[in-house]
Amino acid sequence: MIASLNPVTSSAPASIRDLPTPSALLDGSRLDRNIARMQAQANRLGVRLRPHVKTAKSLPVARRQIECGASGITVSTLKEAEQFHAAGVTDILYAVGVAPNKFGAVLDLRRRGCNLKLVTDSLDIAGALAGYGRAHGHHFELLIEIDSDGHRAGVRPDDPLLLQIAAALEAGGREAGGGALLAGVMTHAGGSYELDTEAALVRMAEQERSRCVDAARRLREAGHACPIVSVGSTPTALSAVSLDGVTELRAGVYVFFDLVMANVGVCALDDIAMSVLTSVIGHQPSKGWAIVDAGWMAMSRDRGTQSQRRDYGYGQVCDAHGKPIDGLVLHAANQEHGIVGFADAAAGAGGEDIRRLLPVGTLLRILPNHACATATQFDRYHLLDEAGGIDVWPRFSGW
Amino acid sequence: MIASLNPVTSSAPASIRDLPTPSALLDGSRLDRNIARMQAQANRLGVRLRPHVKTAKSLPVARRQIECGASGITVSTLKEAEQFHAAGVTDILYAVGVAPNKFGAVLDLRRRGCNLKLVTDSLDIAGALAGYGRAHGHHFELLIEIDSDGHRAGVRPDDPLLLQIAAALEAGGREAGGGALLAGVMTHAGGSYELDTEAALVRMAEQERSRCVDAARRLREAGHACPIVSVGSTPTALSAVSLDGVTELRAGVYVFFDLVMANVGVCALDDIAMSVLTSVIGHQPSKGWAIVDAGWMAMSRDRGTQSQRRDYGYGQVCDAHGKPIDGLVLHAANQEHGIVGFADAAAGAGGEDIRRLLPVGTLLRILPNHACATATQFDRYHLLDEAGGIDVWPRFSGW
Repeated sequence: MIASLNPVTSSAPASIRDLPTPSALLDGSRLDRNIARMQAQANRLGVRLRPHVKTAKSLPVARRQIECGASGITVSTLKEAEQFHAAGVTDILYAVGVAPNKFGAVLDLRRRGCNLKLVTDSLDIAGALAGYGRAHGHHFELLIEIDSDGHRAGVRPDDPLLLQIAAALEAGGREAGGGALLAGVMTHAGGSYELDTEAALVRMAEQERSRCVDAARRLREAGHACPIVSVGSTPTALSAVSLDGVTELRAGVYVFFDLVMANVGVCALDDIAMSVLTSVIGHQPSKGWAIVDAGWMAMSRDRGTQSQRRDYGYGQVCDAHGKPIDGLVLHAANQEHGIVGFADAAAGAGGEDIRRLLPVGTLLRILPNHACATATQFDRYHLLDEAGGIDVWPRFSGW
Repeated sequence: MIASLNPVTSSAPASIRDLPTPSALLDGSRLDRNIARMQAQANRLGVRLRPHVKTAKSLPVARRQIECGASGITVSTLKEAEQFHAAGVTDILYAVGVAPNKFGAVLDLRRRGCNLKLVTDSLDIAGALAGYGRAHGHHFELLIEIDSDGHRAGVRPDDPLLLQIAAALEAGGREAGGGALLAGVMTHAGGSYELDTEAALVRMAEQERSRCVDAARRLREAGHACPIVSVGSTPTALSAVSLDGVTELRAGVYVFFDLVMANVGVCALDDIAMSVLTSVIGHQPSKGWAIVDAGWMAMSRDRGTQSQRRDYGYGQVCDAHGKPIDGLVLHAANQEHGIVGFADAAAGAGGEDIRRLLPVGTLLRILPNHACATATQFDRYHLLDEAGGIDVWPRFSGW
């Protein structure tokens, strides 16, 4: 028991009853199915799949994606780049606009053989990076971030800034001793998370594609090479009918899926590969509550389903085998306490019933609203394979 | 630069400009002031202070609390108990209802000299713990959790269950070879977080005190020793006029404070000791947005101020020296992207202004909604002392 409190051990537990609570569980067959589904979609559309590893931050998960056909990875932090490069992955896209205080760390990684590509939507950053490259005798590679849906960052494809950034990047010329090379364009239609019909998702996927391809065309017409055209989010990647003009697809959360994605309509509850194992520690019978040892520290504070068609509170409650208990959600969460109750109190157990339904010590699994946010609360996953075995897969966090 | 991406190093950075972004900063003089304030309050009220270490999860922080007069600690996980016991703290209260699958780990800690006390509000757990103690020839110590405000867990002081739990605990008698001893009662008026007037806080503190003391009185009248009467939350601890009948006070978040506590009214913005250092990485000038490299991964998803008198979005933006920029908040957050803008768009910078006000590369500090949630996203703090030095203080997470 004590060993389970310590950093990842080599001996795997024999049963989920041997795990401490809370623990993060992965269903191995669902994981494999999700990985195969996205790879088949990329193959059908004729593009490379560059999975975003920010969801799992776990080498064994990325290994399964690469074995299934993925080519290169996307990261959200330099720590991810550092960790995956140390594990042998060299083709890495850092998909968050780079700040000047990170240039040194990026240069160090590139000099160690990591083909780390950067993104920006800022003319000042482009100029500063090119200058830093010239000063250090090194050519950085950078993609211009395109705004395809107005939700966050990026340059609109028709904005004069697009060509200004390209010009600033390559001011020193490709033949100079150092600078920055335009490697391509990338976009992320994060606005797709707010949709929930197939028609709207198909339209958003086409908008993401066409605006990014338009930006590449403008750059090429102005004389810039623009080899990479990179698009994606899990909802648009799974909804795209054509990716004509695109070279690569990025997606992250599909590897686990979650309740937000179920509400968007791109997965079912039984596709969700990650859950949090928890124990019942008490009750408030008059309120129909069971208190569990998974609060927001285990689930995260993410309430992404609150604004969607079905609100799952802090998560959908399942039995120990992973079968959802209809209507039962984690409806409130403190740091290490969760309150389990029926979403519709009238339909649920009242009086003494919750104590009989979920006695103290009962193990439950909770499906997360947002897998990226829940996963980062843990330093390891417990992978359940089809044969009933449990493996321990480390994950990392931080910057 | 690369060293800063690796686990905590022994060499301290010379300036915040040497830190990676995002980083967690602690203002040392505010930290000391907050610690001294709560200790003075406990001293004035004539009770022990048993700080809850779940906020900081950092040995150097707890050391400052103990040096200032704190006596014993409160924890929310067995990992905290394990870590602080390894550092020499022996008097520990695990303030989350214990589940049967944790009995083995608790027994191991107690046999290694950790005076770890447990809590429950469940008759079944009390009986199971006493049985486990008898079976293993060990006496556990347990406090009954009292519900003083209806917000979560606990037994109401007038509930017959109170005496049933005490009887189940001590069924084997104190003279038996093992079992469970009633060490006292404890309560946490978490409902105080929803208040924001001094009068309401004073009333809630008195309710928390009187209901817990009532429970102790009932137990003593029934023949049970009830040495510990433990109450507290940061808002009630700072608002209590009298703690007559109470033996110890618990509070956690006061050590850092946060925007939720500022809205409750128990601290000012310039008492908040923790902030997140971030860099500006881009703009959407037409929207008045600056994009920064602190998203919800750095700030957490906590939106605790959303339902309070002032909504700070994902945090209050300050300049690099920690001075709040009035009206500027982190109004949206994705995983590693934050969107900074004026809460009242009409009052803020429009057009090109945001680029002049916050050029790319600008360092900002963001005050968190909920310090416990933000702190856990980091594996270290950077402590800024009054002399301008920076120290690196490790922290841990997980279970």
